[in-house]
Amino acid sequence: MSSISRRKALGFIGGAMAVGFAAGTLSTPKVAIGAEEMPQEATPFGWKYHKLDFKEVQPITHEEFYHNGWGCGYAVFYSIVGLLGKKYGAPYNSFPFSMLEVGKSGVSEWGSLCGSLLGAASAMALFYGRSERDPLVNELFRWYEKTAFPIYQPTKEIKEGMNKALPSSVSGSILCHISVSHWSYTTGIPAQAPERSERCARLSADVAKKTVEMLNAKIEGTFKPTEAWSETYETCTACHGGQTEKFSSPILKGKMDCTPCHTGSEHVQNKLIDHP
Amino acid sequence: MSSISRRKALGFIGGAMAVGFAAGTLSTPKVAIGAEEMPQEATPFGWKYHKLDFKEVQPITHEEFYHNGWGCGYAVFYSIVGLLGKKYGAPYNSFPFSMLEVGKSGVSEWGSLCGSLLGAASAMALFYGRSERDPLVNELFRWYEKTAFPIYQPTKEIKEGMNKALPSSVSGSILCHISVSHWSYTTGIPAQAPERSERCARLSADVAKKTVEMLNAKIEGTFKPTEAWSETYETCTACHGGQTEKFSSPILKGKMDCTPCHTGSEHVQNKLIDHP
Repeated sequence: MSSISRRKALGFIGGAMAVGFAAGTLSTPKVAIGAEEMPQEATPFGWKYHKLDFKEVQPITHEEFYHNGWGCGYAVFYSIVGLLGKKYGAPYNSFPFSMLEVGKSGVSEWGSLCGSLLGAASAMALFYGRSERDPLVNELFRWYEKTAFPIYQPTKEIKEGMNKALPSSVSGSILCHISVSHWSYTTGIPAQAPERSERCARLSADVAKKTVEMLNAKIEGTFKPTEAWSETYETCTACHGGQTEKFSSPILKGKMDCTPCHTGSEHVQNKLIDHP
Repeated sequence: MSSISRRKALGFIGGAMAVGFAAGTLSTPKVAIGAEEMPQEATPFGWKYHKLDFKEVQPITHEEFYHNGWGCGYAVFYSIVGLLGKKYGAPYNSFPFSMLEVGKSGVSEWGSLCGSLLGAASAMALFYGRSERDPLVNELFRWYEKTAFPIYQPTKEIKEGMNKALPSSVSGSILCHISVSHWSYTTGIPAQAPERSERCARLSADVAKKTVEMLNAKIEGTFKPTEAWSETYETCTACHGGQTEKFSSPILKGKMDCTPCHTGSEHVQNKLIDHP
């Protein structure tokens, strides 16, 4: 059975949901949502972005970070897609937003991808498929690797005692584990301290701003990538990318800066031997 | 403004979406979805899981991996939540499934969290908040770190020429970069080869099976975690976890096995010096 015939066999019912959905779809030609298709089967990546003001978005990101402790992924996603829901209703307000809590602390506390980046990339994926989304994601992720966070200064105190100056650091990595642990290592502030949570709430607002700025430029037709790949990535992919004879060892998957894990820093030596 | 007052200010309209949504909510007491709340604001994590047969799920995962090239995250999520949509209609069939393409190749090709795990954890997050979800995620992710993939043997050929035996490897990591690159390194099969894609399609089916088995046990009340933390994680968190005086350097965020990056393997030495 082909993919298409399988999904027809699945027999999705559009029904009530499709009515609300239609309001936010692109105006480009699309297949009618009928008895055999579900939203974004007929119009994948069919939700339409509308320009947002980062000055309106950032305080929401910062505050929502603390909502029920749902954290970074939810905060970024909600401050963009939720705000679209406020302004434009369906389909944006139909999204089960609490799902994005999964991004907290690098996905359910595992320290993998920074949840703020997951929230941002997931929001982008409502509007754009891979070929249009990847340049936006590349720009955001590479900017994240190089930037000293946090930048955002809250205008009001959400968490008691946390409306104060915080130190910043450049993590060099999109991974929560490295981003948080490096910040704690360089600042001396424990990873479980409220100051570290506040750091991540502000970082989330920084990521939301960058995301909204890029999406605004995208729909204006003025988005142009400005970030270059990391030097180590350029160097390593010369042999480890691709699959032709040009590449002597084509085993590399990913676009992360290779520096944190493959340049022999003290942090990646054998910590189980002669470790204080 | 508190979080609650802010979301009231957002003025979400339930409307047509809420009608369809109600069918899949939990039967536990919930706030009515009115003019000021949106689905999963009133009932966060309110979608209800129904038992699925992994034998029905796995061929869908495997096939959907190739659908439009949307890959691992979409395939796992769709084969669970999409199948619930087939069987139970709303709210499952309202989800904008193409969004999960974002998980492909460790999120838009960046090699961070394996997209199959993102798809699985995101599906879990429709049904369960952190306290109930994290034990399921921990079990899945730790199992993934220790397991030789792929296991699943397709019953039919989806991609031409790919219905054949494939070598397996234990990645030791939930990160796409390590999972794929280690497989390619140990098997000699390029990361961009169709066999590697097929490996990930089958791995996605393996992750979907494990996820469905756990979710089935969860709603039966029989789920019990069986996986232990990695030895290095236990060792490292003794000093690097927490924030009290017991922890001499409380900088650690995450639950990943520390072995791949912190035990000084040849792979994490300085590859820019005297590298062939």
